[in-house]
Amino acid sequence: MSEAQIVTLTTDFGLSDHFVGTMKGVILRINPGAQFVDICHQLNSYDILGAGLTLALSYPYFPDGTVHLAIVDPGVGSSRRAIVARTSRFLFVAPDNGLLSFVYEREPDVEVREITAERYFLKPVSQTFHGRDIFAPVAGWLSKGVAVEEFGEQITNYYRLDIPRPRRIGARQVQGVVLKWDHFGNLITNLAPQVIPELFSKPVPEFRLTIQGQVVTRLYSSYSSGAAGEVFSILGSSGYLEVCMNRASAAVTLQAAPGAEFTLTLG
Amino acid sequence: MSEAQIVTLTTDFGLSDHFVGTMKGVILRINPGAQFVDICHQLNSYDILGAGLTLALSYPYFPDGTVHLAIVDPGVGSSRRAIVARTSRFLFVAPDNGLLSFVYEREPDVEVREITAERYFLKPVSQTFHGRDIFAPVAGWLSKGVAVEEFGEQITNYYRLDIPRPRRIGARQVQGVVLKWDHFGNLITNLAPQVIPELFSKPVPEFRLTIQGQVVTRLYSSYSSGAAGEVFSILGSSGYLEVCMNRASAAVTLQAAPGAEFTLTLG
Amino acid sequence: MSEAQIVTLTTDFGLSDHFVGTMKGVILRINPGAQFVDICHQLNSYDILGAGLTLALSYPYFPDGTVHLAIVDPGVGSSRRAIVARTSRFLFVAPDNGLLSFVYEREPDVEVREITAERYFLKPVSQTFHGRDIFAPVAGWLSKGVAVEEFGEQITNYYRLDIPRPRRIGARQVQGVVLKWDHFGNLITNLAPQVIPELFSKPVPEFRLTIQGQVVTRLYSSYSSGAAGEVFSILGSSGYLEVCMNRASAAVTLQAAPGAEFTLTLG
Repeated sequence: MSEAQIVTLTTDFGLSDHFVGTMKGVILRINPGAQFVDICHQLNSYDILGAGLTLALSYPYFPDGTVHLAIVDPGVGSSRRAIVARTSRFLFVAPDNGLLSFVYEREPDVEVREITAERYFLKPVSQTFHGRDIFAPVAGWLSKGVAVEEFGEQITNYYRLDIPRPRRIGARQVQGVVLKWDHFGNLITNLAPQVIPELFSKPVPEFRLTIQGQVVTRLYSSYSSGAAGEVFSILGSSGYLEVCMNRASAAVTLQAAPGAEFTLTLG
Repeated sequence: MSEAQIVTLTTDFGLSDHFVGTMKGVILRINPGAQFVDICHQLNSYDILGAGLTLALSYPYFPDGTVHLAIVDPGVGSSRRAIVARTSRFLFVAPDNGLLSFVYEREPDVEVREITAERYFLKPVSQTFHGRDIFAPVAGWLSKGVAVEEFGEQITNYYRLDIPRPRRIGARQVQGVVLKWDHFGNLITNLAPQVIPELFSKPVPEFRLTIQGQVVTRLYSSYSSGAAGEVFSILGSSGYLEVCMNRASAAVTLQAAPGAEFTLTLG
Repeated sequence: MSEAQIVTLTTDFGLSDHFVGTMKGVILRINPGAQFVDICHQLNSYDILGAGLTLALSYPYFPDGTVHLAIVDPGVGSSRRAIVARTSRFLFVAPDNGLLSFVYEREPDVEVREITAERYFLKPVSQTFHGRDIFAPVAGWLSKGVAVEEFGEQITNYYRLDIPRPRRIGARQVQGVVLKWDHFGNLITNLAPQVIPELFSKPVPEFRLTIQGQVVTRLYSSYSSGAAGEVFSILGSSGYLEVCMNRASAAVTLQAAPGAEFTLTLG
């Protein structure tokens, strides 16, 4: 791996407390050369799947050797394990609650270890803020070059969440769900082009996407192609089909949230 | 220019998604020495003028050579151009939608180029996130020292927004508008001292400022000079007259938003 | 002190304006080697005590030599003084309004100076944004190694807020208050174990904590030990007793805010 000492942070800790800053202080005491990038701290509280997706949309864009620290941890202080995962390009530090499920899915060579080496922890370890006392110190030492083997034994029974998959129903129909909405109210679905490549051919075929009682029949190539009040679809930067509006929130207009189902029929 | 490798970021992307973090990852892969400063990411969605003002209130305070990346981009994926602008001290990267209008107004020597050099883009370029695929890479290469000439040809027909100006009505009266409110509910108007220097002489002359049906007759030199519930004015750090309250929100109290008009009469 | 050039920032400036970014620009012009960590900018406006507590929960975790810049400053532009404080490990820059009260309480060797050396200020000094014009420049020069003695004379009559203390009422009862809530709705009280060590012995003794008409009888060691809808207590990472729920907000459920009183009775 390269010499990058970048540590990214992805949490549901919000920005109205000292939590994130304190973790960075802990890391800097261990590695004064660490450089931080906040991916997101305003994740929905306890939403492990949404957090995992947010991380997945971002982590590949970082330099080799980046340490990705991710914490959405409703089980803090319980028997849930802490893990470090290594892929060909990155290191991840997280609770073992499925937060890295998208990483497991996308990275063929992932190696996961349970963090047990208490010598790296900040003592005394609190019951409620392992971000400060366990995860940040481990990320700090990793960013400084301590080998993953130092932190604990490899495990294979790490926890995976079920990532919702679109279902192909016959030749011309798929069912899927909304995975997340973004700041602009765009609804990011779980439908990637490879599931239904015909939809993304030119010219765009006729189709009907039904969600929350609304029928969407347009696939545009920019948000600004949409007329005022029109709900349409677009192939988003996430690699997934999005349901969206031009300068308005599809999430609000359709009253749709993560988990909302849709059906798409060609022709 | 100096050796600064600072990249500032000003967007309406919010802080509940991966967008800002991902852009920083892209930049760090290009220039590991880049240092980031977030100016603001909670700009009102699609509010190009407000974003331009926020940037204008901040950019002059940075070291020479700073790259200012600004993105409020409702036209992403359409035919709107991407631009890089150079002034004597700074570089700016933005969509060509008027976001840099305050820069054009304040910097006599600005040179603007259309970004066309696709070799610097992240491929494939998405339809919806040019921040990641075009603007961040260009900012990264600029911060690393690539010359602006590399990115495209100079243009002179770049897009300018009309910045609302105060109007002098006769000898003793001006009309103006609120440009923005701040986090504390202070209303920042477009009235600068040079428009009506008499107002800012000592002792403060008698005046009446009428806004949203409220009459303001006091110009104080600190927020804490205001009595409880009193609406007053102050010469703000922005260089503009502000309408404000002591430990309360003038914006909420007056139900005033950007665009609200006021009249100020001396004597 | 060490060579750390870390500057932390704790303010009530919010994240929807240019304020924080501008202060960083000012600091970088003075010290290009400065490294920033945001502790919190979403403090409740004008809540000096809450801000002081947030800072107190974070500052000890930083490397020696860190400059902690803290600004909640409703008195900006009035006669309130600006101060720099030095402890054995840290430097603090803040308005003299009690924001550092927890530092004074915890650091036996604190030395406080009034900032009067205008040669370090950004001119002209505005009436409303001393963060940009006084505090940031002073923090920048401190981070660059300028001695605290340069900024002004030592003072001993610096302003201290009364920090609410729990009261022991007889042998088996204490009264206390909520100091703050956190992002998850946990209520952080002012009750530390040394006030009532019996409560934190094993096995946990019987007790009744009454707050907002609710009786809490459980002290758990992890949030996830709580049943759905149950309000319980925990020894938080802050070192104080917290009143909390599992994946829900105790603050919302109990309609409790900072200042809410509680009584705890053993047996």
